[in-house]
Amino acid sequence: MQILIIGAGGVGSAAARIASRRSFFEKLTIADYDPARPQQLIEAIGDARYATAQVDASSEDSIVELIRSTGATHVLNAVDPRFVMPIFTACKTAGATYLDMAMSLSQRHPEQPFTRTHVKLGDEQFAAADHWERDGQLALVGIGVEPGLSNVLARYAADELFDDIEELSVRDGANLSVEGYEFAPSFSIWTTIEECLNPPVLYDKAKGGWYTTAPFSEPTVFEFPEGIGEVECVNVEHEEVTMMPRWLDAQRVDFKYGLGNEFIEVLKTLNKLGLDSTDPVSVRGVQVSPRDVVAACLPDPATLGPLMKGKTCAGVLVTGTLKDGSTGSRYLYHVADNEDTMARDNSQAVVWQTAVNPVIALELLANGTWSGAGVLGPEAFTAAPFLDLLAAAEPAGYGSPWGIVEK
Amino acid sequence: MQILIIGAGGVGSAAARIASRRSFFEKLTIADYDPARPQQLIEAIGDARYATAQVDASSEDSIVELIRSTGATHVLNAVDPRFVMPIFTACKTAGATYLDMAMSLSQRHPEQPFTRTHVKLGDEQFAAADHWERDGQLALVGIGVEPGLSNVLARYAADELFDDIEELSVRDGANLSVEGYEFAPSFSIWTTIEECLNPPVLYDKAKGGWYTTAPFSEPTVFEFPEGIGEVECVNVEHEEVTMMPRWLDAQRVDFKYGLGNEFIEVLKTLNKLGLDSTDPVSVRGVQVSPRDVVAACLPDPATLGPLMKGKTCAGVLVTGTLKDGSTGSRYLYHVADNEDTMARDNSQAVVWQTAVNPVIALELLANGTWSGAGVLGPEAFTAAPFLDLLAAAEPAGYGSPWGIVEK
Repeated sequence: MQILIIGAGGVGSAAARIASRRSFFEKLTIADYDPARPQQLIEAIGDARYATAQVDASSEDSIVELIRSTGATHVLNAVDPRFVMPIFTACKTAGATYLDMAMSLSQRHPEQPFTRTHVKLGDEQFAAADHWERDGQLALVGIGVEPGLSNVLARYAADELFDDIEELSVRDGANLSVEGYEFAPSFSIWTTIEECLNPPVLYDKAKGGWYTTAPFSEPTVFEFPEGIGEVECVNVEHEEVTMMPRWLDAQRVDFKYGLGNEFIEVLKTLNKLGLDSTDPVSVRGVQVSPRDVVAACLPDPATLGPLMKGKTCAGVLVTGTLKDGSTGSRYLYHVADNEDTMARDNSQAVVWQTAVNPVIALELLANGTWSGAGVLGPEAFTAAPFLDLLAAAEPAGYGSPWGIVEK
Repeated sequence: MQILIIGAGGVGSAAARIASRRSFFEKLTIADYDPARPQQLIEAIGDARYATAQVDASSEDSIVELIRSTGATHVLNAVDPRFVMPIFTACKTAGATYLDMAMSLSQRHPEQPFTRTHVKLGDEQFAAADHWERDGQLALVGIGVEPGLSNVLARYAADELFDDIEELSVRDGANLSVEGYEFAPSFSIWTTIEECLNPPVLYDKAKGGWYTTAPFSEPTVFEFPEGIGEVECVNVEHEEVTMMPRWLDAQRVDFKYGLGNEFIEVLKTLNKLGLDSTDPVSVRGVQVSPRDVVAACLPDPATLGPLMKGKTCAGVLVTGTLKDGSTGSRYLYHVADNEDTMARDNSQAVVWQTAVNPVIALELLANGTWSGAGVLGPEAFTAAPFLDLLAAAEPAGYGSPWGIVEK
């Protein structure tokens, strides 16, 4: 296997670090718009299988050329979701297997944005599914942590725990804090605004499938495991909701993000004041986008790892009829502790938890445990081998256990 | 009397409109940095006594020259508090009576900003008091609504209602809303941030006088009269606290601003994210001040009058021993209804309520009811004639009643 990672940001760099302890591939090229970034990274890693390249992720031709020149068989897209389509299409053209951690972007309904879907997350990619399948080529989409590990856990619940699933509710929460800052998001505020202020998508088979609501709808307090505790969660637009109903039989699917009350209030206030907008405003003769100003006022999340403390949890709350005939709920989850991920890979918890999953998927594809053709989510593959490899101690596995709690 | 108003913004313009119905002066010049603004205004008013001028309010020399060339005997400062000192000093030099509605700015304590005062509001002006008094010249400071009418009401309570005052608590609240906007402050957000995020100043005789607290301290819900209802109030830096103890005997003085819970949360969020800062940040190659960006995202309050609905209330809650020997509290207040002030003077309620008071004060100075020398607050003068003139129906008075409620 010849891997090409596009993007040497937090997640791409962490994936490269994690992969360097594995032997399933022969070569890994990491490419970025700024060639200095992957260069510094591979010097720090010191793995003879690693190479770097420069790429413009917005240019399909540039990516096709890069895939061909590096001989990449598998491409991991680790850049901003705005670049999903050029990379996805370039992989199809060049004949490479494609993996990503976020899918093509949505477009809100022009008249009823908070009731009806229009273009959903991933729709542009799923539209090409027949083409990929016919050519026997695989796009493994949404294989980060959420989407990604959450979809794997949902498939595990469907195969091993439940006979009949009433609801799949993906739930993400953390107790991370950043020393010395009153307010310092551990993830890009620009992207967080994007995903939180877009109309959340939900799925209800009885209501005819997918629909949308107003941002921050259906607030609920959920108790996350391993000492994280109670966090206020709200509906947020996320790929799992548009992915899971394609392969798993559930009455309802939603995604509830444990933003916590403080973060929710901050986002609502930014929206109320128009500070979430990307349309430029005129300020003393210069044009700026308010959302860029908000981002510029906050610390760069990439620099916060050493100052962070706490854990982040991703998982899925599954409700339905269990294998023993009883009805009940189980929360299947994975926790990353910032102290541990910083020590392992100099990567903060949220970033590390995203990056580990595509590396495991690549390993399963390399050894033939997973195979397929088309545009497939993680829930299209058997879950147990993935979860076993994630949990098994190093060097056999990735040494990062997952769990199940009764709810 | 020859009046010079410096500043043809909302308050200066409203004062000029209100004064045009009065006969106590011979000439009124309204000056602005932009000469088109007063020109449009006096064309709309059509009063033969009115003239316009251009002025740079930051230049003491330019103001001295303007006072001399217009023959002004009385100068009303109606610009931003940053220009208090040049206008105040120019009036001293030119021998004119000076009036303002906001006093010289404070400077926070370098080590203990939220415990101790350093340079208080008005300190720079009060430092010159001996000089004004010795020369028999009057600076009537803080004669808007707050400070201004609130100080007059406090003096009235001291003279007519109470034998002994325990506490003077100035309280300002409104139920104004702006049609078509989810969030639209009726007052400059730039100035509101300035006054709300500065350390609030309080006075307590038993604690040795003035001290400061953290912003938004001591939240309390106060029920405002005439249908406005309950509004959450917090301590805010305001001139009354630094003025009243100079002339009135009270154990404690504070200022609680009825910002309402929503506005308080907005201001706290702006502060938490650094969006209140006036220090420029770099955004994609340009430098902007975050606070300017916040202001640019919101509608211009000067344009909102026709869309506003509701009332604003200013007053003082006085607690102590009443003339009959009982102890109790009385709230002395004045309410302005936006519908009424728009109809009268095409001026929104908050602006009109500020502008009417210096006009009344000028009339009392013109007819000799009020006179004095030094740097004096409104509470240095007898209150009853002021309040009578405010309340009396037009044309005898200003037709804007005030009230007292037991609390």
